[in-house]
Amino acid sequence: MTWVPGAAGSLYDVDNLPYGVFTRPSEEPRVGARVGEFVLDLAPLAAADLLEIAHALEQPSLNRLMACGLEQLADLRGWLIDVLTTDAGRDSAEPFLVPVGEVALQLPFEVGDYVDFYASEHHATNVGRIFRPDGDALLPNWKHLPVGYHGRGGTVVASGTAIRRPLGQRRGADAPEFGPSTRLDIEAELGFVVGHPSALGDRIAAEDFGAHVFGVVGLNDWSARDIQAWEYVPLGPFLGKSFATSISTWVTPLAALDAAWTALPGQDPKPLPYLAPDSARGLDIAVEVELNGEVIARPPYAAMYWSPAQMLAHLTVNGASVRTGDLFGSGTISGAEPGTQGSLLELTWGWHEPIGRDGRLALEDGDTVILRYTAPGTGGGRIALGEVSGRILPAH
Amino acid sequence: MTWVPGAAGSLYDVDNLPYGVFTRPSEEPRVGARVGEFVLDLAPLAAADLLEIAHALEQPSLNRLMACGLEQLADLRGWLIDVLTTDAGRDSAEPFLVPVGEVALQLPFEVGDYVDFYASEHHATNVGRIFRPDGDALLPNWKHLPVGYHGRGGTVVASGTAIRRPLGQRRGADAPEFGPSTRLDIEAELGFVVGHPSALGDRIAAEDFGAHVFGVVGLNDWSARDIQAWEYVPLGPFLGKSFATSISTWVTPLAALDAAWTALPGQDPKPLPYLAPDSARGLDIAVEVELNGEVIARPPYAAMYWSPAQMLAHLTVNGASVRTGDLFGSGTISGAEPGTQGSLLELTWGWHEPIGRDGRLALEDGDTVILRYTAPGTGGGRIALGEVSGRILPAH
Repeated sequence: MTWVPGAAGSLYDVDNLPYGVFTRPSEEPRVGARVGEFVLDLAPLAAADLLEIAHALEQPSLNRLMACGLEQLADLRGWLIDVLTTDAGRDSAEPFLVPVGEVALQLPFEVGDYVDFYASEHHATNVGRIFRPDGDALLPNWKHLPVGYHGRGGTVVASGTAIRRPLGQRRGADAPEFGPSTRLDIEAELGFVVGHPSALGDRIAAEDFGAHVFGVVGLNDWSARDIQAWEYVPLGPFLGKSFATSISTWVTPLAALDAAWTALPGQDPKPLPYLAPDSARGLDIAVEVELNGEVIARPPYAAMYWSPAQMLAHLTVNGASVRTGDLFGSGTISGAEPGTQGSLLELTWGWHEPIGRDGRLALEDGDTVILRYTAPGTGGGRIALGEVSGRILPAH
Repeated sequence: MTWVPGAAGSLYDVDNLPYGVFTRPSEEPRVGARVGEFVLDLAPLAAADLLEIAHALEQPSLNRLMACGLEQLADLRGWLIDVLTTDAGRDSAEPFLVPVGEVALQLPFEVGDYVDFYASEHHATNVGRIFRPDGDALLPNWKHLPVGYHGRGGTVVASGTAIRRPLGQRRGADAPEFGPSTRLDIEAELGFVVGHPSALGDRIAAEDFGAHVFGVVGLNDWSARDIQAWEYVPLGPFLGKSFATSISTWVTPLAALDAAWTALPGQDPKPLPYLAPDSARGLDIAVEVELNGEVIARPPYAAMYWSPAQMLAHLTVNGASVRTGDLFGSGTISGAEPGTQGSLLELTWGWHEPIGRDGRLALEDGDTVILRYTAPGTGGGRIALGEVSGRILPAH
């Protein structure tokens, strides 16, 4: 049991220990781990213990840490748990515990390429029904491959960053109209962060997922639906998404999710062998979407059709390389039941049924959205993944 | 007139002077400028002349140089022309001239986000006719905005890098098939490289194009059409493109293109004001597509519908920021006349009419493609932009 005050049995017990980058007034940004309501300042502690990995912790991003080998990362986690659960550890580490309220958390890593998938059958079906009421809800390729596309890595921002309502074109009666988006929406997603890179021309097999993915973040893929609906044929979403994507400031290492793996709902028809359908597993992560303090949806990640490993295997099957800091999102997490959809587009069924006590269709200026995520921890309780918050500012 | 042997009147006279990154055996990569058949080793020369910008030249990429202010860059170019055209310059610079055959040219900059546009009306119309023979060739949004999407920045490679044929899914009779792409294609494009960044939430006005774009590169957006055709609905191209995009090792600064600006063919209907249609100008750049030593197409950049400044204004109108090293491509350059199309898809009219002395439909293993670009120079002759070459390797 941990000696950190209030941490034992909390959502940030020692079976969690996400990593982030923090700053304190007039100090350089560096890597910390979250435990209870504290941030452990890792770099000086690791340096005092003569850990070789200390150099990767005195950095303004997690990239150098994430690029370390699996064994080194496992050793760091083992050392950290030891420090946080022993008397000897307490003696050395207590001076390096900082209340989380006293630090400023940063974008945790330098984002390389950002890819967004579309891995929820319920979401894809709902969007298909709303956008193409006369066609098939799912397009012919959807059950054969995890559909995805590239987003903008340079506009991925840290949780807490205010989101400026974008301007853009939308369909008009005769000619397109131009102005602030009138259909600003969220997409509640899970993001996967690449640690160990691959070489151009190589494929990452589905079973090697854990050798390349460092961990997960909460992710809100803000979407201007009116801009998106007008621009997206035939080359896909562009400005309707590229103004901002928010991620949590905490990155939960895969090891903390060991107890969260679960069976997929089922894949029929059976995907091609490179997608390793027989070994595909999902993650039992519960999501809460909070709008202005009110929970408006509870999307279940366990309902996702395509597995995280299948997404990575697909992303690289053509020989595309991945770099440390590459990020791929699951796509909107939506379940089958009412109130389990991860977008306002779906929750209001195409802007027809207002939701929440404020009767929202789309987001209004001043609205605050917070995404929260929990999963079973290896200690028997639950752990929290990093939350993602953002408040809407009026258009410039 | 320049004293550099053979440079005066050549395609690399002193009105050109593209920048690149070169290495020599057992030396660190650093910035050079091309003049005639030589590379001028800029860092030691600039240091000897006590130029403040020297630190930006002793770098393994152009990023630090490209991030310099417009005035500093203009000063560097002025100094360089002075050095290359005066006796005093000859005395100091001659020892730093290296035959271009004695250096290895590198990927010239660290690529941030890569966006690909679709700015040729002829190309978009041809693709529409081939892919959607029963529908309208151009979709309703096409003449209102420069359609674009994000590609993969991490798989942008330098000219000369061999291109491995990608594996992937394609449409089959009953179920999708999997294997090496059977429809490997090129897209002859021009790429624009961002120098000076912008802040999140800000827009770059069309008239500020020159304050943010450092220069241009040749660009071949390799495309696996069979993979693309199956995957691309509804979120756009993904693995059909992400295996590799080749760019020239030389970046031509905008100043070298001062004489190449020309009127657009014409925009009807008139685009929205943020696209500044009244001041939009194109570039008179001639492109040659060479397949296995035979010129198979001569696409004219002057035929492009959307202007470079309109692409940048559109890319940022939603507040998306740009970073030093961001790259945006024009999309395939195709003219109206036979033999002026920048893709095999069009040149063979959907794989029906073999082209060239080898009777190619799509690219075969061992094929070499070279894209060459020339433009009017400010000295009255023509200048060459960097060429882009690649040879196809068999699938793994």
